[in-house]
Amino acid sequence: MMENNIDEMVRKLLDGDRRMLARTITLVENGRKGHRNVMRQVYPHTGKAMIVGITGAGGAGKSTLTDILIAKFRKMGKTVGVVLVDPSSPFTGGAMLGDRIRMKKHAQDKGVYIRSIASRGTMGGLSRATYDIIRIIEAFGVDIIIVETLGTGQDEIDIVHFAHTCLVVFTPGMGDDIQAMKAGILEIADLIIMNKADLEGAETFIRHLKGAVTAADIPEGAWVPKVLPSICVSDKPANIKGQDEIIEAIYEHFAFLHKSKSLDAIKFQRLELELGLILNSELQNLIFKGLKGTGLKKKYINAILGGENDPYSVVREILDTYVLHRKDA
Amino acid sequence: MMENNIDEMVRKLLDGDRRMLARTITLVENGRKGHRNVMRQVYPHTGKAMIVGITGAGGAGKSTLTDILIAKFRKMGKTVGVVLVDPSSPFTGGAMLGDRIRMKKHAQDKGVYIRSIASRGTMGGLSRATYDIIRIIEAFGVDIIIVETLGTGQDEIDIVHFAHTCLVVFTPGMGDDIQAMKAGILEIADLIIMNKADLEGAETFIRHLKGAVTAADIPEGAWVPKVLPSICVSDKPANIKGQDEIIEAIYEHFAFLHKSKSLDAIKFQRLELELGLILNSELQNLIFKGLKGTGLKKKYINAILGGENDPYSVVREILDTYVLHRKDA
Repeated sequence: MMENNIDEMVRKLLDGDRRMLARTITLVENGRKGHRNVMRQVYPHTGKAMIVGITGAGGAGKSTLTDILIAKFRKMGKTVGVVLVDPSSPFTGGAMLGDRIRMKKHAQDKGVYIRSIASRGTMGGLSRATYDIIRIIEAFGVDIIIVETLGTGQDEIDIVHFAHTCLVVFTPGMGDDIQAMKAGILEIADLIIMNKADLEGAETFIRHLKGAVTAADIPEGAWVPKVLPSICVSDKPANIKGQDEIIEAIYEHFAFLHKSKSLDAIKFQRLELELGLILNSELQNLIFKGLKGTGLKKKYINAILGGENDPYSVVREILDTYVLHRKDA
Repeated sequence: MMENNIDEMVRKLLDGDRRMLARTITLVENGRKGHRNVMRQVYPHTGKAMIVGITGAGGAGKSTLTDILIAKFRKMGKTVGVVLVDPSSPFTGGAMLGDRIRMKKHAQDKGVYIRSIASRGTMGGLSRATYDIIRIIEAFGVDIIIVETLGTGQDEIDIVHFAHTCLVVFTPGMGDDIQAMKAGILEIADLIIMNKADLEGAETFIRHLKGAVTAADIPEGAWVPKVLPSICVSDKPANIKGQDEIIEAIYEHFAFLHKSKSLDAIKFQRLELELGLILNSELQNLIFKGLKGTGLKKKYINAILGGENDPYSVVREILDTYVLHRKDA
């Protein structure tokens, strides 16, 4: 796409053109020509949405909760962007599929934009795209962005750090493992959601979680994670409970961030993370561009296999040849 | 550590000094001074062990199976190295802990070396160390290396690609999700293990798995994944069944790799993966070294926050300043 087409694309995106939103995301996700230009133009328009991260183990009911929160935010007159980060593992694909289908009912609503993306990407490649996509939705202009991700793997945890408010979702059945994970959860959770709170063991689990929060060494003036029960059966509205309180707590936490100036710190951290990912992605491009078509990679690998070289020395050579000496890249 | 101390360290490691093995791994894992030198000296001595990857979802009984396989390999007179790759997520920590403790009974056995490592590491940092550690254990000299990893996240899947033979472990309860994951599993599994095969639903699940293998589009001459039942209760030896068949199948697969020349292809792929990770890790070092203490990162981030710059332009600047123009690094 020509540069002036990119300008036009971004202009329409910023004007609220939904079709252009989808096209822009696809362009950036695939790292097509012009994606850097898009991002450079998009950045000044980001930073206005409230970003809510929802994470937790498989089967915790994250997607059902997301589904209900979307509906509630919409009733409040808010526009919502949803980024579903699919793990790249073959072991978790099954569970997600049904959720995706269920969520499609929002597809007709012009106030909701839902996008699934894969967390995959060797060495952070697609993670970079994930952050870019959130930025594009910010620039498009929604009030709230929900980022839903399975709580496994460093990639997923990094995505959570991008949110202003992080919800960690549990179910009563997960109680056994809670001892070992206490510290980790309190590190990332602003709100701890006990989903399926009507099931046996929920009350005990909630008590344990609240006890863990009380016992935690939270610095004075810092946010104290809230433990909230939730019952949500997506297709039975009568059985839905606790989500109004969750939304209230999300806004309470966001207000706290504003008041305590933590919002600035979060914005800083987000950028630090993004810079690292972009840097990484650009470096990969730089080197792959240099090696492409030279047949050198194969030659290097065969030399190592033949015992004449080793990977660390090869990398040194590649750096010397394709990075440190190049000025034209 | 001085360079001649590194030489001494590697010499002792290659001589089979277990204490030096642990020390070498720690040095490399933490990227301490001399780690490149260690790896350069270690490489020529690698490539002789048979590497078995064990993966699957949490609760599938991977560690119990690993535990029993260690014991069986030992009875066959084989020495065994075990690398337990811990996911960095707080949600999965609980389940691992018990397994780790159980496995400690092998600690007294001089023919077994067990090491836990975290898969964490922003942008592939510690993944590099994971591969290096497997290489060090190869050079130390064991017959078999078992790499156990939770089957979630791209990092974990990449680690599996390092193995000669990959075991994917299931339990009957996971049958519901199988439709969606069939393709992904057949892509990585050489042996599909139905663990807890005495539980209800196991037979149906095995039948489905075998059906999936039969229906799969496996190229002529390629390995056809085997589906094997297994019952293992670590502390009740009478209830252990199917592991002899698993070991037999591991050797059968390894022999197949030899005969079909696939072993060379696997070695090539391993190196390709390693080169990418080392390259990545070295580039990070290079840039962090350049930025360290300059206060520039903070300045860049604040400029972006102030709307005067954007991450993509900043990265371009960093690359121009700290990578492309440097020859002294």
